[in-house]
Amino acid sequence: MTQVTAAGGPEEAPRGARARLLAAAVEAFAAKGFHGTTTRDIAAAAGMSPAALYVHHRSKEELLYLISRTGHDRTLALIREAAAGAERPREQLVAVVRAFTAHHARSHTSARVVNYELAALAPDHLAEITAIRREINQVVRDLVEAGVCSGEFRTADPRMTALAVLSLGIDVARWYRDDGGWSPDQLADHYAEAALRLVGANAAETPPP
Amino acid sequence: MTQVTAAGGPEEAPRGARARLLAAAVEAFAAKGFHGTTTRDIAAAAGMSPAALYVHHRSKEELLYLISRTGHDRTLALIREAAAGAERPREQLVAVVRAFTAHHARSHTSARVVNYELAALAPDHLAEITAIRREINQVVRDLVEAGVCSGEFRTADPRMTALAVLSLGIDVARWYRDDGGWSPDQLADHYAEAALRLVGANAAETPPP
Repeated sequence: MTQVTAAGGPEEAPRGARARLLAAAVEAFAAKGFHGTTTRDIAAAAGMSPAALYVHHRSKEELLYLISRTGHDRTLALIREAAAGAERPREQLVAVVRAFTAHHARSHTSARVVNYELAALAPDHLAEITAIRREINQVVRDLVEAGVCSGEFRTADPRMTALAVLSLGIDVARWYRDDGGWSPDQLADHYAEAALRLVGANAAETPPP
Repeated sequence: MTQVTAAGGPEEAPRGARARLLAAAVEAFAAKGFHGTTTRDIAAAAGMSPAALYVHHRSKEELLYLISRTGHDRTLALIREAAAGAERPREQLVAVVRAFTAHHARSHTSARVVNYELAALAPDHLAEITAIRREINQVVRDLVEAGVCSGEFRTADPRMTALAVLSLGIDVARWYRDDGGWSPDQLADHYAEAALRLVGANAAETPPP
């Protein structure tokens, strides 16, 4: 749907083409992997010539980098927003895990590319993405540590527990299917409960049988 | 290391070549994905000509199938053996999760191929592998349900809890590095504890603060 821009200029067409190429690249990388995809595949899926792709994107790797950067920025923003919307570690953890899990279920195709094609990034791009992943880890780790300090959580190794909480959410991108019987919200609820168990937050609520 | 066979015949050389090709295929598929790998890449890594590959394996897909079948058979055997070595659901779960986690850490390269290239299998091979994956899921689900029945575990949804327990172990193949600071055994211990928390087995042992 090409819209006339405010200036009435031709900017909209190139932006539309860039977006089409990115969407085609996500599908192709998810289906055949970065190394199994050619720029010709991507251009064809976007209804363009291989030469036209290079008008909009410098390389196949640049497409992967843009997908990866957008996905990681969005994930970090989502979980920061979720953490900021609550005050105590327990409620923050629930909000963060809900947002993280639902995102990986809803966007499972792009999340597979974002999480499983890191090794195909150029070294400078990989360094940039790795820094964002560290920030994502740090949000969850700070939260787990805050809960341990306040006595709400009990875990001997907050670092490994934070890793396990995120690992569960990331792996959703591998196995989640839209017709699999669980909605993103149902899964988010179950995984928020799972995260509370992993950090040892439920001890006070589940007395021995 | 070629050994002289009992019959003194030439069987050992072809068997060695088959194994070399399989090992080369694991490395190549893990690094560049199934679709990003050519039979030429695999043959070259095994020190053979592309034509020689076809003497031993019908196709690239057959190599993937053999890797996948071996990996899944081994995983199922490992967890069945672990479950059979204990009597109560709690000890069985600990043994199964320890074996499953340590295996995905130790064999993280082949486990990535086994878990992330399923979509590249031919339909009949995929059906066969899917059946083994169902058996693996069933072992863990039966165990979680047995623990719920006996009152040792508490979880509202044993099916999703079993999935989460396995998901944690599978995702180890994505992130585990040999120089990452945790040995397979340390990780196995932590994940066995995590699994006990996920199934609600620790309520009796962690009284509220």
